Amino acid sequence: MTNNNSVQVSLLGLGAMGSALADALVKAGYATTVWNRSLGKADDLVAQGAQAAATAGDAVRASRLVIACLLDHASVHEVLDPLSNELAGRTLINLTTTTPAQSRELAAWAAHAGVTYLDGGIMAVPQMIGQPGASILYSGSADVFNECKPLLDLWATSTYFGEDAGLASLYDLALLAGMYVMFAGFMHGAAMVAPAGVTAGQFAAMATPWLTAMTGAFQGFAAVIDGGDYTVEGQQSLEFSNLSDLLASSSDQGISTEVVAMVQGLIQRQIDAGHGEEGFARIIESIKQPG
Amino acid sequence: MTNNNSVQVSLLGLGAMGSALADALVKAGYATTVWNRSLGKADDLVAQGAQAAATAGDAVRASRLVIACLLDHASVHEVLDPLSNELAGRTLINLTTTTPAQSRELAAWAAHAGVTYLDGGIMAVPQMIGQPGASILYSGSADVFNECKPLLDLWATSTYFGEDAGLASLYDLALLAGMYVMFAGFMHGAAMVAPAGVTAGQFAAMATPWLTAMTGAFQGFAAVIDGGDYTVEGQQSLEFSNLSDLLASSSDQGISTEVVAMVQGLIQRQIDAGHGEEGFARIIESIKQPG
Ligand SMILES: NC(=O)c1ccc[n+]([C@@H]2O[C@H](COP(=O)([O-])OP(=O)(O)OC[C@H]3O[C@@H](n4cnc5c(N)ncnc54)[C@H](OP(=O)(O)O)[C@@H]3O)[C@@H](O)[C@H]2O)c1
Ligand SMILES: NC(=O)c1ccc[n+]([C@@H]2O[C@H](COP(=O)([O-])OP(=O)(O)OC[C@H]3O[C@@H](n4cnc5c(N)ncnc54)[C@H](OP(=O)(O)O)[C@@H]3O)[C@@H](O)[C@H]2O)c1
Repeated sequence: MTNNNSVQVSLLGLGAMGSALADALVKAGYATTVWNRSLGKADDLVAQGAQAAATAGDAVRASRLVIACLLDHASVHEVLDPLSNELAGRTLINLTTTTPAQSRELAAWAAHAGVTYLDGGIMAVPQMIGQPGASILYSGSADVFNECKPLLDLWATSTYFGEDAGLASLYDLALLAGMYVMFAGFMHGAAMVAPAGVTAGQFAAMATPWLTAMTGAFQGFAAVIDGGDYTVEGQQSLEFSNLSDLLASSSDQGISTEVVAMVQGLIQRQIDAGHGEEGFARIIESIKQPG
Repeated sequence: MTNNNSVQVSLLGLGAMGSALADALVKAGYATTVWNRSLGKADDLVAQGAQAAATAGDAVRASRLVIACLLDHASVHEVLDPLSNELAGRTLINLTTTTPAQSRELAAWAAHAGVTYLDGGIMAVPQMIGQPGASILYSGSADVFNECKPLLDLWATSTYFGEDAGLASLYDLALLAGMYVMFAGFMHGAAMVAPAGVTAGQFAAMATPWLTAMTGAFQGFAAVIDGGDYTVEGQQSLEFSNLSDLLASSSDQGISTEVVAMVQGLIQRQIDAGHGEEGFARIIESIKQPG
């Protein structure tokens, strides 16, 4: 165990995620004070050596570094608004899931209160904390990120995006968007093959390596998008990306076409605007410019 | 080089894909006869040792095993319909992209003509043929698949799905659906972060490992779907999968919400039907039962 017990940390919120974060701190030997609104959730942590604070104010006063992992933006304000004087001069890392606008609002609130602020977005479930594959995105104070990096790295791979406190939340939401949409695509495929007697498990066995391999296309799309020229040679054209067979075969299977029709709509708007011979990456323009 | 030169193979169609397939056969020492509608495309292959046939009929007569890789279903019929007598007693492997209905139609046509038929769907671009990561899906005659496996494995990982000739095309389309939808999800994320000055390349650097990791969820969803019980413990519920922050933040960024709204629609229909506390995998029911 390293000599972390000289570093004082307070953690507000011992839900599923807050408990996992606190557990990693205690195990690594940090002098950890924990607080939770309702009683009892600190017991396991106290048995391992954590201090339980009776009030959020006591927890804040116990450490220069305060970490919040509460339900949502409103609960953060409910807990911290009465403590702005106590927080002044301290550091706040907020790992509660918030929108970019909420993160920026809290950063402004913190600046006003004299609190140094780092915002985080957790890309993991509690069981993944401290395991490979867990990722936490940060933005806000670079100084806090750099000073606390050894502590942050206990939980997950830590990535810092910039001083704008809303950036981590924005990335978080953008990555979640990609995930939910990919899940819908997987479900569409599984629904297509189901009437032929193929189980979802059999389909997943093919779809997992296939979609993993296809993530390899992202950097190529990105190079075209960032280059700003959708006519670069060697791309699959929008005209070629005709999903009508896919839509017709989905209908033949008796399933909804809405998932694939969404993509077809993005493609068709670019073709209609005269860009059919340009690359598939151009569908991002259909998203960037709402109709 | 193995002693493949006793095995005669004829390949119809030397477009980008047919040429790549033929090239692999010639390099592996198969006695390969090639034909293409327009002249000149066989020259490189002939220089490497292939035979060029003057007509499709000559190509069919040269080998017991005939492989077609033409533009589409109509072009396969245009080339093969006049040759049904010559094809009788031979084996046809059709790697032209077709719908499940078209594959089944061609299998019926082949059975009527006394031709043993295997259907294939290529999940690769021509440059990937013979490289790791290329995959070709097969269905139709199991005997042909098993006999020809050493030859098929030259091109790609070969997977056989069953006697129904339409199955490979169905899997092919279902996997392509997953891919196109995942691409749209990536584009949505890239469009979301762009107004904050994040390049598509920076976003791709995060999205590639993230979505790769998230494909790990497919088998869990599949287990729930195949188990037929969406109330199993330990799943993320539909109520919890509320995409309204995602939609609002997308609007805040000035971009279209249609990509994420598609997923929200699938979720909401299940919540409206009273299943909000059940697992996220239940969105497949929104796809299986069109409104
Ligand atoms: N769990 C995950 O998989 C996951 C993944 C990524 C991000 N996150 C984020 O992490 C944060 C915490 O998630 P969780 O899974 O730990 O949630 P949880 O298990 O539901 O815990 C919520 C916590 O917030 C507290 N809380 C709620 N309202 C409060 C209020 N008004 N005042 C004071 N405390 C309040 C709760 O206290 P009580 O015990 O008194 O109710 C509890 O400690 C959320 O923002 C979540 O989005 C979670
Ligand atoms: N390229 C890929 O990335 C890829 C990936 C997966 C699957 N596939 C599938 O593989 C097949 C071939 O693709 P490709 O990339 O090789 O296409 P391609 O480069 O456009 O070549 C098309 C081929 O079909 C021939 N053809 C078209 N119409 C014909 C007709 N009526 N009669 C006789 N021949 C005809 C062409 O002959 P001419 O030279 O005389 O025009 C050419 O040999 C397609 O079904 C495609 O969907 C391709």
